[in-house]
Amino acid sequence: MNQIFMRERDRLKEDMLSLAGEVEMRLGDVLKAAERRDSESLLNWIDRDSEIDEDEVKIEEECLKILALHQPVARDLRFVVAVLKINNDLERIGDIVVNIAEKGLRLAEAPAIDIFGWLLQMGKIAREMLKSSLDAFVSLDVSKAAAVILRDDELDAMKKKVAETVVQRVNEADTGAMTGALLLMHGVARDLERIGDHATNIAEDVAYLSEGRIVRHKRAAAQPQG
Amino acid sequence: MNQIFMRERDRLKEDMLSLAGEVEMRLGDVLKAAERRDSESLLNWIDRDSEIDEDEVKIEEECLKILALHQPVARDLRFVVAVLKINNDLERIGDIVVNIAEKGLRLAEAPAIDIFGWLLQMGKIAREMLKSSLDAFVSLDVSKAAAVILRDDELDAMKKKVAETVVQRVNEADTGAMTGALLLMHGVARDLERIGDHATNIAEDVAYLSEGRIVRHKRAAAQPQG
Repeated sequence: MNQIFMRERDRLKEDMLSLAGEVEMRLGDVLKAAERRDSESLLNWIDRDSEIDEDEVKIEEECLKILALHQPVARDLRFVVAVLKINNDLERIGDIVVNIAEKGLRLAEAPAIDIFGWLLQMGKIAREMLKSSLDAFVSLDVSKAAAVILRDDELDAMKKKVAETVVQRVNEADTGAMTGALLLMHGVARDLERIGDHATNIAEDVAYLSEGRIVRHKRAAAQPQG
Repeated sequence: MNQIFMRERDRLKEDMLSLAGEVEMRLGDVLKAAERRDSESLLNWIDRDSEIDEDEVKIEEECLKILALHQPVARDLRFVVAVLKINNDLERIGDIVVNIAEKGLRLAEAPAIDIFGWLLQMGKIAREMLKSSLDAFVSLDVSKAAAVILRDDELDAMKKKVAETVVQRVNEADTGAMTGALLLMHGVARDLERIGDHATNIAEDVAYLSEGRIVRHKRAAAQPQG
């Protein structure tokens, strides 16, 4: 049974990493597609969001199965709960990637603006944060997790820069289409900032998993509350 | 033991509802404070976000304790996992409320704009969605949960309306301060939309809790995977 648990735990980890890799790849692809105004590719990723949702449900079911069958405690329990939470973050990132793709479709019809490079740079950081947070989770590397949390400040600073540039450009803009395009870019910057927030959440789970919080077994068992 | 479990489950439910009520109240208060440009009140809520974070940690610890001690299965297990997820949503909503308060501080220094009424209306819907989603959870009322999910479309439509108005007004704006204020309002509308998304997530958990998904006990127990 212990060996079965270990096998299932390993499979759970692999499935979660595979979902993370998929989401990270899609983020990169959607940003590149938005840059080259490739509506077909954007529509493809929007259509295929259900795959991410299905993977999330599958991983959650795996977690529930492990909890019900193996009733893990201590670090094993914290591991499964951390996967439940990370799984949730990954699914939300998948939703945000779809939001970016939808904005990309509208940007493809809008005047070109030269601040797209900022968004690509933000996307690169967000992807690196996501990848590092999962590496930190797998290797229980608390200092790597701390580095992810620090990088979130970098991403936030870039988003602020984009927001300031948008305000300035909007004041110079002479058409509604230009203003609309600038606001869409601002929206993409916010989306990328949120992806960074999710990566930060994952990094925070690493500290939780490796250091643990006190689960008050004894008090609860000894004296019924009420 | 079963009675202890039931008591702990009830306490967990109460703690979660209390956190939900607190978050909902703060959202209402922050929007009202932003409307009357009450920076002191806004700062107060920003400072006190740590209370929400502490409640979230406490509820998560309760969940872990229950899982470790009582090793619930079937519907009881799904209940605890649903609380873990909802707890997460509530904490994120708390963060978004802080984001709104921070924007409110900047709006307090900016020129007044008459679209604030839209934001109050969006806030009202978001609060009602949050409240209904938790009512639906407590009473396992799937049709109430479905109504929450439908209301999210209403909220999204209002957000679109705000975005369109912002684009239009920005084109008429003649100062950077006015443009900045309009973009902040657009940001608040997006924040409220995200709160609606979290309420929708909670409503979706109700369907999951009341109908359940198949947790494949037998196959996993009978044949080790590899």
